[in-house]
Amino acid sequence: MFSSSIITIGYEILSGVIQDTNFTFIAKFLKSIGVPLLKKISVKDNIENIIEAIKYASNTDIIFLVGGLGPTDDDVTRDALAKFLNKKLIFNENQWTKIVNFLNNKNKIISESNKKQAFIIEGANFIENDNGTAPGMFYKDNNNFFFLLPGPPRENIPMINNKVFDILKNYNFIKGNFYSKVFKLYDVSESFVFDLVKNIDKKGINVGYYFVPKGWVEIHLTKFFECEDIDKFKEIEDKYIEIFNSNKIFWTEDYDLSYILYKKLEKEKLTISFAESITGGNLSANFIKTPGVSSVFKGGVVVYSNESKIKILKVRKESIEKYGAVSENVAKEMVLGTKRIFNTDISVSVTGIAGPTGNTDRKPIGLVYFGFILKDKILLKKEYFLGDRDQIINKTVNFVFKELIQLI
Amino acid sequence: MFSSSIITIGYEILSGVIQDTNFTFIAKFLKSIGVPLLKKISVKDNIENIIEAIKYASNTDIIFLVGGLGPTDDDVTRDALAKFLNKKLIFNENQWTKIVNFLNNKNKIISESNKKQAFIIEGANFIENDNGTAPGMFYKDNNNFFFLLPGPPRENIPMINNKVFDILKNYNFIKGNFYSKVFKLYDVSESFVFDLVKNIDKKGINVGYYFVPKGWVEIHLTKFFECEDIDKFKEIEDKYIEIFNSNKIFWTEDYDLSYILYKKLEKEKLTISFAESITGGNLSANFIKTPGVSSVFKGGVVVYSNESKIKILKVRKESIEKYGAVSENVAKEMVLGTKRIFNTDISVSVTGIAGPTGNTDRKPIGLVYFGFILKDKILLKKEYFLGDRDQIINKTVNFVFKELIQLI
Repeated sequence: MFSSSIITIGYEILSGVIQDTNFTFIAKFLKSIGVPLLKKISVKDNIENIIEAIKYASNTDIIFLVGGLGPTDDDVTRDALAKFLNKKLIFNENQWTKIVNFLNNKNKIISESNKKQAFIIEGANFIENDNGTAPGMFYKDNNNFFFLLPGPPRENIPMINNKVFDILKNYNFIKGNFYSKVFKLYDVSESFVFDLVKNIDKKGINVGYYFVPKGWVEIHLTKFFECEDIDKFKEIEDKYIEIFNSNKIFWTEDYDLSYILYKKLEKEKLTISFAESITGGNLSANFIKTPGVSSVFKGGVVVYSNESKIKILKVRKESIEKYGAVSENVAKEMVLGTKRIFNTDISVSVTGIAGPTGNTDRKPIGLVYFGFILKDKILLKKEYFLGDRDQIINKTVNFVFKELIQLI
Repeated sequence: MFSSSIITIGYEILSGVIQDTNFTFIAKFLKSIGVPLLKKISVKDNIENIIEAIKYASNTDIIFLVGGLGPTDDDVTRDALAKFLNKKLIFNENQWTKIVNFLNNKNKIISESNKKQAFIIEGANFIENDNGTAPGMFYKDNNNFFFLLPGPPRENIPMINNKVFDILKNYNFIKGNFYSKVFKLYDVSESFVFDLVKNIDKKGINVGYYFVPKGWVEIHLTKFFECEDIDKFKEIEDKYIEIFNSNKIFWTEDYDLSYILYKKLEKEKLTISFAESITGGNLSANFIKTPGVSSVFKGGVVVYSNESKIKILKVRKESIEKYGAVSENVAKEMVLGTKRIFNTDISVSVTGIAGPTGNTDRKPIGLVYFGFILKDKILLKKEYFLGDRDQIINKTVNFVFKELIQLI
């Protein structure tokens, strides 16, 4: 089994300004080809720091160096690796022509500093960059297999998927198959789930439990098989599903709830509309993430004020005065009004208190009323959600999608 | 000047499943106290791997080890540091009593495995954890200053802000003051901005340029002054502002556009409403992020279908047939309809093509029409945005906020 390291280079990652999405992508890529990742390092764009990081990573087989291949003075990654390997950097005319052509095609100015990107480490090979001027590079000796990749994801992602994969395959670094399964469990705590499944014999399958702040627990089953068959994997997978179901846990596979709901509505040829108070547009905004939803989603109203509830949805002024805007009665009148306007098979209303202000003894922050109409049936629900403003809004959105998936 | 490293421990970070938010938080904390961060490492929860990471970090002054202080077998961070330092782990009765009390207060079961959390490295001090059972720890010798912190952010963030800060201050690791300024620039490319400001004499102030995928370029000016005054900083800051303004770049300080717009509306006592087609609720969802917006935001409609445009906003069927739903005429009728319903000082409509389908020769993906009504003035705009579905939606939202901030 081979091992690997990722070194990401640049102040913007080290300072926490920018999320290290390159790392996340390469980590998943490595998982998918069955190469364990042992070390992840971020350092500044400074030759000494990069060399020190390479030394620390040098007892792993494959080493990815990401970033610092641009044309400016800060871009020293190729110099650092050359120095570590004690190799020269050689100007490559052919590569320079490619860079000039690339810039010409984009009507961009060719600057002297771009020449830097046409230098290659003695003994290395270029990896062509279809989306920018900085070519990648790979270098292999008896100790390590180095990959130098440009920093921008739109350049390195296609490079990894199309080219790095082939190179690793050619050198026989990719064997067998990787299997994975992700479950998302709603309305449960991590420790509750852990206790439920802890006695399953995992038979060497890797299991990870993660609490996702958007409001669910994820279980990741993963295993790389070099030659064995995958029946064992399927068997364990089924044991998990059996336990979830016998404990009446609501779970899904690795899809967004909004996507699952959309596919269900599409299949059943049902249309939907929303009336949002507490979620202020988040229900619609989440639902339209998937292209094509317009076939089932007719629209929604964001009734953030009492006037708009009254005027658009015909909620009665007296209901608001008597029960308050956050009440079962108002949720009911909201959903009836929504059904009237959009005339969809399904309509949903949400009204609640997201905080941080607005709480009272009788109506705390996190209280949400829901109205559902499915064909001609009305269903009203009430929930208390814990968390801050964002979390309460997220949980309200998840709850709507989850209820509908179960109801349809 | 002191230097520092962060080591985050756990498979869930290394595998890319979970964003390393602990790292981001501590990186910003270190910046705020003027301690440069040189190395960021993630490793698995394995004693040998952790020791190897500590060795790699050991030429920096302050080393944060985060995660792996829980009660299970995987939690080996304290064992690893003890082994690296060649020190014993000693059971601490007093700490055990605290853990028992904490669990009792929460009505939680006390398990034998919790005992692990009452062990301390010989010569170290506990850092109390007000939000969990795993205490933090610090250990100082002539070479390094180690901090062991629990993994969950709701435990380690208060610990860092309230306790780690005081400890570092007591040991004289925090001196002087940190200054920073963040500019956000819209509708510009990173290289354009870089060229504009590259000749400014930065006088030792750190400058970072970052392209943020949500659609803007950030410039971060930072400097830690031990004794000098900050006039120099202010001077550089003003030079940047002068260049932005003389080049007519739209820029803001480090706030969300939606927040800036909300504060402006609040000050001018203006109300607002939205009609969304292409953005499908994202305009409203972004605007309500700040608590209290209900004083200016009256509501919106998400008119995702032609029927809803016609029925709710009284867009004329003939206009849609003649010009298409994505047209100036429809944007105009949409915003007039919105004004009619909500009767706000400002109304906005957006209609466009987010893709990935819906592309035609005359109307490409990324084409968006905008309608603005400010008091009684109507303004119509058309833009072409590049990017994928998410990016086009984000850019549409930013454009609306940006235009309104400039118009009001």
